[in-house]
Amino acid sequence: MSKLLRVNMTDLKAAFEEVPEPYRLWGGRGFTSMVTAREVPPNCHPLGPNNKLVIAPGIVSGTAAPTSGRTSFGGKSPLTGTIKESNAGGLSSQKIARLGIKGIIIEGHPEEAGKFWLLKINKDGAEFLPATDLVGKGMYEVCRTLWERHGKGVAIIGIGPAGEYRLTNAGICVNDPENTAGRYAGRGGMGAVMGAKGLKAIVIDDTGGPGVAVADQTRFRAAIKKLTEASLKHDVTKKEGALNTYGTNVLANIMNEAGGYPTRNFSGGRFEMVGQISGEAAREIIQKRGGVGTTGHPCHPGCIIQCSNIFTYPDGKFHTSVLEYESVWALGANCGIGNLDDIADLVWACNDVGLDTIEAGATIAVAMEGGLLEFGDAQGAKELIHEDVRHGTPLGRIIGNGTEFTGRAFGVVRVPTVKGQAMPAYEPRVVKGIGVTYATSTMGADHTAGYTIAPEILSVGGKADPFNPQKAELSRAFQSATAFIDTSGYCLFDAFAVLDIPEGLEGMVESCAAVLGTNWTVNDIGPLGIEVLKAERGFNEAAGFTKAHDRLPEFMKYEPVPPHNTTFDVTDEDLDKVHAY
Amino acid sequence: MSKLLRVNMTDLKAAFEEVPEPYRLWGGRGFTSMVTAREVPPNCHPLGPNNKLVIAPGIVSGTAAPTSGRTSFGGKSPLTGTIKESNAGGLSSQKIARLGIKGIIIEGHPEEAGKFWLLKINKDGAEFLPATDLVGKGMYEVCRTLWERHGKGVAIIGIGPAGEYRLTNAGICVNDPENTAGRYAGRGGMGAVMGAKGLKAIVIDDTGGPGVAVADQTRFRAAIKKLTEASLKHDVTKKEGALNTYGTNVLANIMNEAGGYPTRNFSGGRFEMVGQISGEAAREIIQKRGGVGTTGHPCHPGCIIQCSNIFTYPDGKFHTSVLEYESVWALGANCGIGNLDDIADLVWACNDVGLDTIEAGATIAVAMEGGLLEFGDAQGAKELIHEDVRHGTPLGRIIGNGTEFTGRAFGVVRVPTVKGQAMPAYEPRVVKGIGVTYATSTMGADHTAGYTIAPEILSVGGKADPFNPQKAELSRAFQSATAFIDTSGYCLFDAFAVLDIPEGLEGMVESCAAVLGTNWTVNDIGPLGIEVLKAERGFNEAAGFTKAHDRLPEFMKYEPVPPHNTTFDVTDEDLDKVHAY
Repeated sequence: MSKLLRVNMTDLKAAFEEVPEPYRLWGGRGFTSMVTAREVPPNCHPLGPNNKLVIAPGIVSGTAAPTSGRTSFGGKSPLTGTIKESNAGGLSSQKIARLGIKGIIIEGHPEEAGKFWLLKINKDGAEFLPATDLVGKGMYEVCRTLWERHGKGVAIIGIGPAGEYRLTNAGICVNDPENTAGRYAGRGGMGAVMGAKGLKAIVIDDTGGPGVAVADQTRFRAAIKKLTEASLKHDVTKKEGALNTYGTNVLANIMNEAGGYPTRNFSGGRFEMVGQISGEAAREIIQKRGGVGTTGHPCHPGCIIQCSNIFTYPDGKFHTSVLEYESVWALGANCGIGNLDDIADLVWACNDVGLDTIEAGATIAVAMEGGLLEFGDAQGAKELIHEDVRHGTPLGRIIGNGTEFTGRAFGVVRVPTVKGQAMPAYEPRVVKGIGVTYATSTMGADHTAGYTIAPEILSVGGKADPFNPQKAELSRAFQSATAFIDTSGYCLFDAFAVLDIPEGLEGMVESCAAVLGTNWTVNDIGPLGIEVLKAERGFNEAAGFTKAHDRLPEFMKYEPVPPHNTTFDVTDEDLDKVHAY
Repeated sequence: MSKLLRVNMTDLKAAFEEVPEPYRLWGGRGFTSMVTAREVPPNCHPLGPNNKLVIAPGIVSGTAAPTSGRTSFGGKSPLTGTIKESNAGGLSSQKIARLGIKGIIIEGHPEEAGKFWLLKINKDGAEFLPATDLVGKGMYEVCRTLWERHGKGVAIIGIGPAGEYRLTNAGICVNDPENTAGRYAGRGGMGAVMGAKGLKAIVIDDTGGPGVAVADQTRFRAAIKKLTEASLKHDVTKKEGALNTYGTNVLANIMNEAGGYPTRNFSGGRFEMVGQISGEAAREIIQKRGGVGTTGHPCHPGCIIQCSNIFTYPDGKFHTSVLEYESVWALGANCGIGNLDDIADLVWACNDVGLDTIEAGATIAVAMEGGLLEFGDAQGAKELIHEDVRHGTPLGRIIGNGTEFTGRAFGVVRVPTVKGQAMPAYEPRVVKGIGVTYATSTMGADHTAGYTIAPEILSVGGKADPFNPQKAELSRAFQSATAFIDTSGYCLFDAFAVLDIPEGLEGMVESCAAVLGTNWTVNDIGPLGIEVLKAERGFNEAAGFTKAHDRLPEFMKYEPVPPHNTTFDVTDEDLDKVHAY
């Protein structure tokens, strides 16, 4: 049976314990949210001794299930004040799971301020090592150093200087098969929680681990076959399909065409330089430059979608991995920056320093609107991350604390956040369903919480008119299904296939059931997801969140966005329907 | 009949209108809160076009009522997100009232960002003048310039650079009889709202104004006689009484003795250098230095308590006015600074740049805890205000946005705020009633919202054991009575006398009734106050505030404060009782 690893940073003890019954059937987000809801006082200070950092692989992570290497990081968010789960790909999920560990709960508070530790976990247990010489180091160097010290191939979870400074846009980094520092549980500032715990990095070596116990192997194999077939068949997820060929940034042209590609701090829905920064452009540049550049690259072993990429300098040498749609948009179009080399550098800097790229780009755009820089000033933007955030200057502390914080610093009214978290790359005044998700997600503005873009823009999982404001039910259905997927360990991109191919969805839930020994069917997905949402909403309510927080920023209601010149016209009543279950 | 002046900053129009019935019987805080609750969308951006800045003299302001020159400033607070009323002494209240103006409502949003205006109000109406040459100027210079231009004796309401930058600890300044810039509606960042409206200053010349209409002159004269007699009789408020002799800073030794004088960011309840910064010490220095220094000084004509002072340089020249208890504590003991000349300079700098001294001191202390400066570093503290805030550097923007903001910038967990506003100079772990007021006030931590220090420490208005956590009813009684006093226009210091002398209380309410032509008696004070509190709570609830926000910061529950080593042990249930009316 898998165990739970409880790590206390006050007295530097780490001990395994049996998984308590309330956590037994959960993985990933379900696990982190149930632990947070039960063990963390909702009105605790997110950086204080009573918050916890909960880490969990998904239910099927570490098995042969395809594309299931997500690690969830949860706790109370210092960015939003809500409960938070943020998940990443990379090496950690499978290795934690294969050591027979269902979740890691990091609690307490370091006695000595400013002292950082490394936690090493392998089949023999967990031990603390001083991380003094890693303090101040960026994640690229940390990853290199830790492979040298602890063996090539170990999984690394870590924070850059931003997390050490406890900046509330600090993410948690996970290394990938090439040991680059590009996989992030970025959203919600969980890197600051890790920093507040005095933990610089976790190294996971699964050599000799027991592997993941699967209750019903026959059923499991049948289930992953169904899911694999669906994934390899669907146009979005198949080999040489949209994601595999162009990566997530295939969306740039699509969203721009729809007029829903936010530009220059959400002041327009189309970017005149989109052709220079799209997924198509990136692929062309990568192919032309040769060298180590590649598309169709996996972020963890066992991924069959392989949507990642390695972007190169003109000489073909490694520049950054990965140029995702959201990152390119945030640090590109949203800042008026139209050059992929500039954007690659900004992405690299965020990954190294330890910031969420979405929040960082939204932050810089708000600072630009506030007069700190001109829109399009790539050099100025780079200095903010490379110099200011890295060295913790006062300006770096402003930028590193995210969009709403920076808006307040510079007196900006047009701040595109919900519950303190910046909106991603979809204009909610144009695509109303994603606006409903932003407003009502348990975790602040987050496209992954209920990706209604699928039916509203991509005609995946049905078709919905993006301008129609009646989206409460659609968003609820996506939010609950997503809470389940985030629990399973499967990558959210599996959803594209299973939304259209029923057997795929069956395979997804049946593989989870087979691991756990339950009888879950597709009918259980909604209720299981809602159980997670209810726990999260309960935490938030006790932390002081009400329906007044389930709203988009005021300016989106009175300011029409070109080219469609629409405002966000979903009624408050409709927003309040989303969680009326 | 008095009128309402509605000022629109979008099209630069100012027009008088009849006072709508729902506002007719209110003045001061009652007026600003009723207008805000009815006219301001609770979830608007505080610095956006839909917030309003409401200015109102009290019911009896401008009459012969003693010590009644308070001006209330209200709207949605950019510091707390709640409704806000903050009031100041100085010249403005009486002059606005004597022009027959019951309230000024400033709305809209300037078309041209960064452009500032001056609003001049006199018996002929209101006009806009460009304030371009005042931009960036401190309030001392602004006051001097405006008396030169608009006549000696005019009232001035204005903002320093902090308000222009829309920093959320920017206060609104009112000049006093000597035209010094020391009277502040400091709390809650209303100066940022004024700045967001593009209004640098308001000049009020009441020459030839109609004066305040009093419905029943005979009753009025009898009433103010009762209040005056009470005020001149009570030990705290009488001539050569505690306030008149030493000013409000007479409290320093008293609170220090009680162990409830917060020191070095609320890490202790006694300050070893209190003897150097107490009211007694200040008086001795002022007397020894001679020159223009004085104690027992009024902040507006007609004050019979006269608790203010003018503090001097060693050569007897003007340094600052006024050294209040709260300001000296915030910028002194709470920052570990024990020299009155340093503190006077910090107070002057806050007054000139346009910051609330309480919030500024709490902010600097949190920055000190976060490692920016050492506790006691007066020079460093001065540079923060004089240089950084004044010039809007990134560090100045952090400091100028207050305590909670600065805590987040520097990753500090021990942040003594409620609803985003810093606690004043009374340790709530020692004096539990004031902690209940901090937690449950409609406006964030605020001693003036329900000053239970009177019975808990000063034996005024009865006696209550400060350590007894059963303080819900006491705080409620003080909060409702205070809401009435803040509405009347009387200075809160009148309360000392009327708490102990029933005739004084009668005089207070009867004078208000005589002005308005109502039949209010002392029995109406509680219900009237609760009507104000209900309107404020309604606004806050719609803005997303719940009982989860009616709490002290977490660290005060687990960290005992020396010398008494007590924590804040008032139960949540008791806190929730305060507003159960």
